[in-house]
Amino acid sequence: MNKNRLEAFSDGVLAIIITIMVLELKIPAGDDWQSLQLLTPKLISYVISFIYIGIYWNNHHHLLHTVKHVTGGILWANTHLLFWLSLVPFVTAWAGEHHFTELPVAAYSFILLMAAIAYFILSKTIVSVHGKESVLSSAIGKDFKGIISVIAYALAVMFAFFVREISLFLILAIAVLWLVPDKRIENKLKDKE
Amino acid sequence: MNKNRLEAFSDGVLAIIITIMVLELKIPAGDDWQSLQLLTPKLISYVISFIYIGIYWNNHHHLLHTVKHVTGGILWANTHLLFWLSLVPFVTAWAGEHHFTELPVAAYSFILLMAAIAYFILSKTIVSVHGKESVLSSAIGKDFKGIISVIAYALAVMFAFFVREISLFLILAIAVLWLVPDKRIENKLKDKE
Amino acid sequence: MNKNRLEAFSDGVLAIIITIMVLELKIPAGDDWQSLQLLTPKLISYVISFIYIGIYWNNHHHLLHTVKHVTGGILWANTHLLFWLSLVPFVTAWAGEHHFTELPVAAYSFILLMAAIAYFILSKTIVSVHGKESVLSSAIGKDFKGIISVIAYALAVMFAFFVREISLFLILAIAVLWLVPDKRIENKLKDKE
Amino acid sequence: MNKNRLEAFSDGVLAIIITIMVLELKIPAGDDWQSLQLLTPKLISYVISFIYIGIYWNNHHHLLHTVKHVTGGILWANTHLLFWLSLVPFVTAWAGEHHFTELPVAAYSFILLMAAIAYFILSKTIVSVHGKESVLSSAIGKDFKGIISVIAYALAVMFAFFVREISLFLILAIAVLWLVPDKRIENKLKDKE
Repeated sequence: MNKNRLEAFSDGVLAIIITIMVLELKIPAGDDWQSLQLLTPKLISYVISFIYIGIYWNNHHHLLHTVKHVTGGILWANTHLLFWLSLVPFVTAWAGEHHFTELPVAAYSFILLMAAIAYFILSKTIVSVHGKESVLSSAIGKDFKGIISVIAYALAVMFAFFVREISLFLILAIAVLWLVPDKRIENKLKDKE
Repeated sequence: MNKNRLEAFSDGVLAIIITIMVLELKIPAGDDWQSLQLLTPKLISYVISFIYIGIYWNNHHHLLHTVKHVTGGILWANTHLLFWLSLVPFVTAWAGEHHFTELPVAAYSFILLMAAIAYFILSKTIVSVHGKESVLSSAIGKDFKGIISVIAYALAVMFAFFVREISLFLILAIAVLWLVPDKRIENKLKDKE
Repeated sequence: MNKNRLEAFSDGVLAIIITIMVLELKIPAGDDWQSLQLLTPKLISYVISFIYIGIYWNNHHHLLHTVKHVTGGILWANTHLLFWLSLVPFVTAWAGEHHFTELPVAAYSFILLMAAIAYFILSKTIVSVHGKESVLSSAIGKDFKGIISVIAYALAVMFAFFVREISLFLILAIAVLWLVPDKRIENKLKDKE
Repeated sequence: MNKNRLEAFSDGVLAIIITIMVLELKIPAGDDWQSLQLLTPKLISYVISFIYIGIYWNNHHHLLHTVKHVTGGILWANTHLLFWLSLVPFVTAWAGEHHFTELPVAAYSFILLMAAIAYFILSKTIVSVHGKESVLSSAIGKDFKGIISVIAYALAVMFAFFVREISLFLILAIAVLWLVPDKRIENKLKDKE
């Protein structure tokens, strides 16, 4: 089966997700500073989500790079990841609209949690198809970053109902953690060449 | 003629269909559990449609894999399929908005019926171009799954006006039937290699 | 310069145009037949526009197939075509919303006219880059279909203010004319092989 | 790492940006000339933004053409550029809606300024990865056009609050400057062949 279409479809979906979020930035009613200021929380959630989709695209790019055989399992693990990411524009708009109140922040964290789990499942599916001895498997190793992210998002969901600041801090901290490019796969690939 | 652009265009359209459905998930007015709960029927129809577009992309991927020559007939049979699938976001939103009442469920089933017929026409067109002796032809055989789907969706349209639960059950049952990857083409291709 | 990205960008824009038109099909307020019936003119304009974008994609596919060198002139002639096609969802929704009254029908015809002229310019630009002796040049010949389309759309713009039925007939007639695949290029390419 | 996916993702995002702007062209309430006339400022801002995204796609196409190695730095410099361009539909609609009043024009200029800076950073990142001796480096030279654009947009932001006509003139003048295709890279590439 062909890896190109899997990449093309994922690129398409991620490109659309990252772009249609701007449609939720409704045009201010007025043309003064105050009207623009009312948009601030929405702009903040837009920036965070843009970075997150950028991170997912970047890591997806790395992950798929190692794939040699595309199976039905990989296709559906990938579609499962895209499903959770497709809900990012919805929770982004909701959290921005209500100035990061409890439930919207919990929902935002929950979608990130499910996306992180889906990414984890996708990478495990790819490893299981390509064997424990493959480049990807040795490169990812114990996948500390993936596990830390899942735990942090789970905590963010819970803290949203008590101390929202901790949830928002966790979301930002994990974004920074992932913004650092994943040297593991890059290095292992270089070693092989 | 070039198969790549046919795949790229179809991937693009399917990626957009699967992603813009989220724009119909209007942000809840409030930020409490009750506001979120009101969204439940819309979320359910979103999930079902996401799975269906995922299935169509997956099967389209398999089907096109066997294509060697792209003719005008194949191009238009493909555009015809995309037309019916392009209406999925519309019926998804309508069925979700009105909590799966009679006519919206019938309309949803009708679009799935027409898409299934269009898929059937596309696969027949491809077979007729490539000859009865081709891989695809022998792989698909009598195409029981395609015929069962068409019959089930036709029944779902009718039952929508009497016992909607049967329509919804049929829609879900056919989704499960297709979620199982189409081993026929995969196996036949493997045999040839 | 690379032809692939020109095709990929055009495919992307055409795929989005053909798909976002469905967002203008606002969900009916009710869930009964009458609510659905009110949608009829919008559905008709949706179908016509879907066919037209399908025709443009199909012909664009053929036209670009013959391109060997991509110049700045070709890039901008292509972007010019995409500009007019990008307005199709707008005039589609406007014509459907107002039940094909005078000005919306004239606007719809005008956009088709400008797109036809842009397509004509694009094909002339490609011919001038590749030389009069190229495959494309001999294949297109005097381009009767292109010229007839431009004249028909110009007439459709004018008749919209007097006898709209003639405008609508012209729009449909030219669609049928183009739905017949362009055998000229296909045949010439076959001869060369 | 693979350049194709970087191009595919950028093409996707740019194709979506250029196309969804039409969704902000709300259908006129009436079907007469007056209703259409009310749309004039929105149509003007639509045309300007369409040309700008076309220019960015065109130049991005040229710039990426010279890239041989894709690093994490290039990926993120590219995502940074896409971020600012993704806000173009928002400022386009806002400036059109309010008939090019002070703050919307300043915001429009500001987004163009940030996009120009992001483009500058991207080209510098590519040069630093490929070395001062590379084709791109010698082709771009001191990059007068890039620097002039940044200065002009910065002036446009400031003048928006005093003499908006100057801002609008600067925005149009820089568009014309870039519409002339970038012969520098084309020529240098030709020399090397």
